[in-house]
Amino acid sequence: MRSYPTTTISSSLFSLFRRTRSLRSSAVVTPPMATTEDSLRQALADKQSTIDARGTAIRQLKSSGASKSEIDEAVKALNDLKLEKTSIENQLKASISGEGSGSNKEAFRQAVVNTLERRLFYIPSFKIYRGVAGLYDYGPPGCAVKSNVLAFWRQHFVLEEDMLEVDCPCVTPEVVLKASGHVEKFTDLMVKDEKTGNCYRADHLLKDFCKDKLENDLAMSADKAAELKHVLAVLDDLSGEQLGAKIKEYGIVAPDTKNPLSDPYPFNLMFQTQIGPSGASTGYMRPETAQGIFVNFRDLYYYNGNKLPFAAAQIGQAFRNEISPRQGLLRVREFTLAEIEHFVDPDDKSHPKYSEVSSLKFLMFPRDEQMSGQSAKVLCLGDAVSKGIVNNQTLAYFIGRVYLFLTRLGIDEKRLRFRQHLPNEMAHYAADCWDAEIESSYGWIECVGIADRSAYDLRAHTDKSGVALVAQEKFAEPKEVEKLVITPVKKELGLAFKGSQKMVVEALEAMNEKEAMDMKAALETKGEVEFEVCTLGKTVTIKKNMLSISKEIKKEHQRVFTPSVIEPSFGIGRIIYCLYEHSFYMRPSKAGDEQLNVFRFPPLVAPIKCTVFPLVQNQQYEEVAKQISRSLTAAGISNKKDITGTSIGKRYARTDELGVPFAVTVDSTSSVTIRERDSKDQIRVNVDEVAAVIKEVSEGRCQWTDILQKYPAHTSASADE
Amino acid sequence: MRSYPTTTISSSLFSLFRRTRSLRSSAVVTPPMATTEDSLRQALADKQSTIDARGTAIRQLKSSGASKSEIDEAVKALNDLKLEKTSIENQLKASISGEGSGSNKEAFRQAVVNTLERRLFYIPSFKIYRGVAGLYDYGPPGCAVKSNVLAFWRQHFVLEEDMLEVDCPCVTPEVVLKASGHVEKFTDLMVKDEKTGNCYRADHLLKDFCKDKLENDLAMSADKAAELKHVLAVLDDLSGEQLGAKIKEYGIVAPDTKNPLSDPYPFNLMFQTQIGPSGASTGYMRPETAQGIFVNFRDLYYYNGNKLPFAAAQIGQAFRNEISPRQGLLRVREFTLAEIEHFVDPDDKSHPKYSEVSSLKFLMFPRDEQMSGQSAKVLCLGDAVSKGIVNNQTLAYFIGRVYLFLTRLGIDEKRLRFRQHLPNEMAHYAADCWDAEIESSYGWIECVGIADRSAYDLRAHTDKSGVALVAQEKFAEPKEVEKLVITPVKKELGLAFKGSQKMVVEALEAMNEKEAMDMKAALETKGEVEFEVCTLGKTVTIKKNMLSISKEIKKEHQRVFTPSVIEPSFGIGRIIYCLYEHSFYMRPSKAGDEQLNVFRFPPLVAPIKCTVFPLVQNQQYEEVAKQISRSLTAAGISNKKDITGTSIGKRYARTDELGVPFAVTVDSTSSVTIRERDSKDQIRVNVDEVAAVIKEVSEGRCQWTDILQKYPAHTSASADE
Repeated sequence: MRSYPTTTISSSLFSLFRRTRSLRSSAVVTPPMATTEDSLRQALADKQSTIDARGTAIRQLKSSGASKSEIDEAVKALNDLKLEKTSIENQLKASISGEGSGSNKEAFRQAVVNTLERRLFYIPSFKIYRGVAGLYDYGPPGCAVKSNVLAFWRQHFVLEEDMLEVDCPCVTPEVVLKASGHVEKFTDLMVKDEKTGNCYRADHLLKDFCKDKLENDLAMSADKAAELKHVLAVLDDLSGEQLGAKIKEYGIVAPDTKNPLSDPYPFNLMFQTQIGPSGASTGYMRPETAQGIFVNFRDLYYYNGNKLPFAAAQIGQAFRNEISPRQGLLRVREFTLAEIEHFVDPDDKSHPKYSEVSSLKFLMFPRDEQMSGQSAKVLCLGDAVSKGIVNNQTLAYFIGRVYLFLTRLGIDEKRLRFRQHLPNEMAHYAADCWDAEIESSYGWIECVGIADRSAYDLRAHTDKSGVALVAQEKFAEPKEVEKLVITPVKKELGLAFKGSQKMVVEALEAMNEKEAMDMKAALETKGEVEFEVCTLGKTVTIKKNMLSISKEIKKEHQRVFTPSVIEPSFGIGRIIYCLYEHSFYMRPSKAGDEQLNVFRFPPLVAPIKCTVFPLVQNQQYEEVAKQISRSLTAAGISNKKDITGTSIGKRYARTDELGVPFAVTVDSTSSVTIRERDSKDQIRVNVDEVAAVIKEVSEGRCQWTDILQKYPAHTSASADE
Repeated sequence: MRSYPTTTISSSLFSLFRRTRSLRSSAVVTPPMATTEDSLRQALADKQSTIDARGTAIRQLKSSGASKSEIDEAVKALNDLKLEKTSIENQLKASISGEGSGSNKEAFRQAVVNTLERRLFYIPSFKIYRGVAGLYDYGPPGCAVKSNVLAFWRQHFVLEEDMLEVDCPCVTPEVVLKASGHVEKFTDLMVKDEKTGNCYRADHLLKDFCKDKLENDLAMSADKAAELKHVLAVLDDLSGEQLGAKIKEYGIVAPDTKNPLSDPYPFNLMFQTQIGPSGASTGYMRPETAQGIFVNFRDLYYYNGNKLPFAAAQIGQAFRNEISPRQGLLRVREFTLAEIEHFVDPDDKSHPKYSEVSSLKFLMFPRDEQMSGQSAKVLCLGDAVSKGIVNNQTLAYFIGRVYLFLTRLGIDEKRLRFRQHLPNEMAHYAADCWDAEIESSYGWIECVGIADRSAYDLRAHTDKSGVALVAQEKFAEPKEVEKLVITPVKKELGLAFKGSQKMVVEALEAMNEKEAMDMKAALETKGEVEFEVCTLGKTVTIKKNMLSISKEIKKEHQRVFTPSVIEPSFGIGRIIYCLYEHSFYMRPSKAGDEQLNVFRFPPLVAPIKCTVFPLVQNQQYEEVAKQISRSLTAAGISNKKDITGTSIGKRYARTDELGVPFAVTVDSTSSVTIRERDSKDQIRVNVDEVAAVIKEVSEGRCQWTDILQKYPAHTSASADE
């Protein structure tokens, strides 16, 4: 028998955009990885002892007056051993940094980030004032990519799934976030420099210490290395006390000053403010958009004609006052979330459009594969449901829709996996939870969380507000229902359990039918029974006079229940950053003397769909270029004229670096050349058809390959070849 | 001679979404309005004296033992006088409330707001927790209207004008808002209940007192009434001391408790928070989006190829912690702004596309008309520029584009006017400023501010950050330039002016060429000169040894200057609310037994473009309805199926109330009826053409009247007639 623990906040809240649990779980699943490194550490230690022994031997030879040739030979042997040691050290270094791939990843990331920053995809916010960590602006191309991604999200989810979109304020009164659990639990553990007051994330310091030791202390024993690796693997599960103990044990001090550190204590990650002038009304900047939907459940259910299932959606800013943001655009203090709350009858989680996604196949990483050290594998979504790997059809439907959404944006499906949460990652009430993780130079990044949160959120707000957030199912005719009735006798319970009475009562009332009937039988035969109360962490003795358990027949006209909620939650900034990495490549210039940057954005997300330039500076051509640009604008297609005198090759390079898929070169007044970015294919199209062609292919109504068939190829050597 | 005052913040910042200056200025422009009321107050006072006199006379008659008939006659005459007095009182009441139009407006507003709230266009935020004043959610149709308005804004401004859109965070560090002046000046005057600490806006209390007196104290003298009206007219210009004095003079107390009030003091309207965990880094939720653009000027100028003019734009949330929000959706604590900063050479404010708007004609309300008590009149924009009413072409261009934007959204052009700021409304640095005001049941509401802010903002951030936010104009060949050089001798000035030295120096350096050369001449002849320093509010004596003034010839290769900025700033929520009022009407139901609500939204902004319903519940028709709905969705057209068994009339009424422009009724499996909302015209269209027809007319590529020509009318009596 068990009752519910008091944990009130979902694990997805903790992990999404905060802790990179994916890093931890990949540590969990790859224990064999350590073998080479371990044996190298052992070999290094062995070699060092041999060297030490030989050194001693040589000193003895010298003091015992051995011959020069004897000593020389011993010294040569020692030098050989030292060379061997250096070689092992190098192997160990390579093994630690993953055969050098780490620095390749760094170099790739640097190339992407340099291009992004130089072309103003993003800008560190308030740069002229030296910026603020964790705050970034989207510059013109980044802003366009973002609005394309959001427009497609609205089309793919809100419009195609008939969702009810809402738009709630960021400023949120405390009572709402108390109900959701954020005021109490939305924290990270922090330590302070005891002299300067500088703040650090406790887990960051421990992580940095372990990584630094593992990378640089080559003489460390294999046992010690294994211990530090274990610490890294369980980092996210350590309590404040455990973190503090490790920090003390390892003698970790403040990185800047070497001063001693305080014990870890929780720091709430919400930006706090005051609503109104009185100072009596605390508010927070919302840490997620979901709560705005939950508190509106009753109105939205009514708007939907009092019918389930239905989904509400919201796109908006969310705020998390990170202690010390790292990882560039991936961990920021303000970001755009797009969240869906799909409300469904807990007794029927089937989905009417399930068959549209059930045959999709993609990389999935179920719990069992993670626990047994296997890797992600391609599964058919329908099989995963029928085998019980994915909990229900609705959850699976959203997993499938998220897969389609991300791959259509341009995320590489080979670097996208759906990872199931391990049991210890999920909140007690969650039925199942999967993260869409995208591989980037930072590792596998959680970009979308898809959780079946059961009835938790609506119940929490029902309890706090006193407004019943429930749905009704009207019966065609009244039903006789046998109902379990558990009536605690509070007087007796109070005498027996005093301050713990409330927890015992809640645990008793939470029993399901089987548990209750078992208890009833036991009480009738034995007069008392042992009962485990999880919230107390112990077992208590329940006596016959403490409660009555019975079943009663009641006539009911409807069923009233709290809907379950299935929540896909999208970190838009993270998706966009991963998209940048997946879209970026370099190719040699025509002369072969430099590498040119290209973003292979699909037209759907490209910040600008088309550039237009006259082949040579010439008034006639410029007029045609203007006319084409105007017709594109009128058709709602973003475009850019480039009438600088630069060479066509340079102009192509500039536009490729912004990921513009099509370039129109005006080389006559009647027809022009359209060039596709990645293939560099060129076709000839009449001036007055250009806008229609670009619109068709930009809006995805046809592919470039279809266009290629329809129009004559431009055969003169392409200008950038 | 004058120097610059220290006012650092723009008047538009103060007025836009804060003080309803429009109310004040309409008071300024309508002095004759009071005449009837004044004479009625006088007549009432006269009548009262006559009644008093007659009362005394009757008492004398009685005491002198006059005959009954004599007394009866006198009493009858007195009663007649009382009736006349009542009649005057009624006239006076009607005159005060504007011939009853006030209550009509109230009733109209209530009908609109009820419909909006019932159909979830908006929802008071956190309603289940009894809400928070000044915070509202957009429910599903409201959210759709908002996203349509923003999409059209992007098309009309960003795309068609080739603007650089950026997206900056809401969390803003203090230094930025110190530079902009918000930390010091973005305040309202507040008073506190001295016992409970409850807060009130000082001007609100004074305004309420005056209005209440004017409406309910019919016996007040015309002089007193004139005084209170004057107070209402100058309310926005009163200082804290003046407000406090009036509150004391009138004996105004706390409305809830009747307790005495504190003196007025400034309350900063920004939501304050802390960035990071240390507590040492103050931040604010931005009160406008503009600052994010200004601080990025250097990067954006570079992105634009170091060329002027160009415009940057931003859409985003802004926050103002109002002391006590009123006026429903018009004055809120969090709202969406869409702002444009157009950077231009101060010496050349022409606009290349000016000719596209110069022949537009619409209601304008120039400064002179306001001061001389005239009303707004239809002007041709081009004439307004050539007559010098509008300061420059670029400002006029944006006025024209804003006019087109608002009217295309569905704002009634007869209830839209462009009002020029009066000299005392503008900041000292502003060259000219016009507000797009829309008339609603609350009066004329400032919805868009269009200001030429000169170089103020870029200079402020240059000064504070030390980063030069300037543009360069390279000369074809070096130019010899005669430059005015003013060199204050700080030692002498320091001795003479001590603590005021800085202000005197700034004032001297700010002299223009004429002022400086006049001073030079005066100093040379007289040895000293009187000089007015505005920032000190007095005149000081400048002596010859305190500065040198000369002209020097320099060779320059380029001109470096701070660009002027022209700023159109849109309050999206206000525009949407006014659009609701302008779009709302009622018409009788078919049976004539009730009034049905309709929003006549143009298809462009309608939250749902099309409803689809089977005429009768029937599987075949339902299949066709689904198929049409799917094809609309695939074309990106928002639509809603209604397969309830309700009568077609009721279903039309439901959809009219959401402002859905088109309804498709499936009454056969091959062709269907499309009905237009306002005309109730019906046409017959083949099932497979429906999506294309609705798309064309929804996206504005053709009008309903064009469609009517092309397809046969459906002649059977329309179901809701």
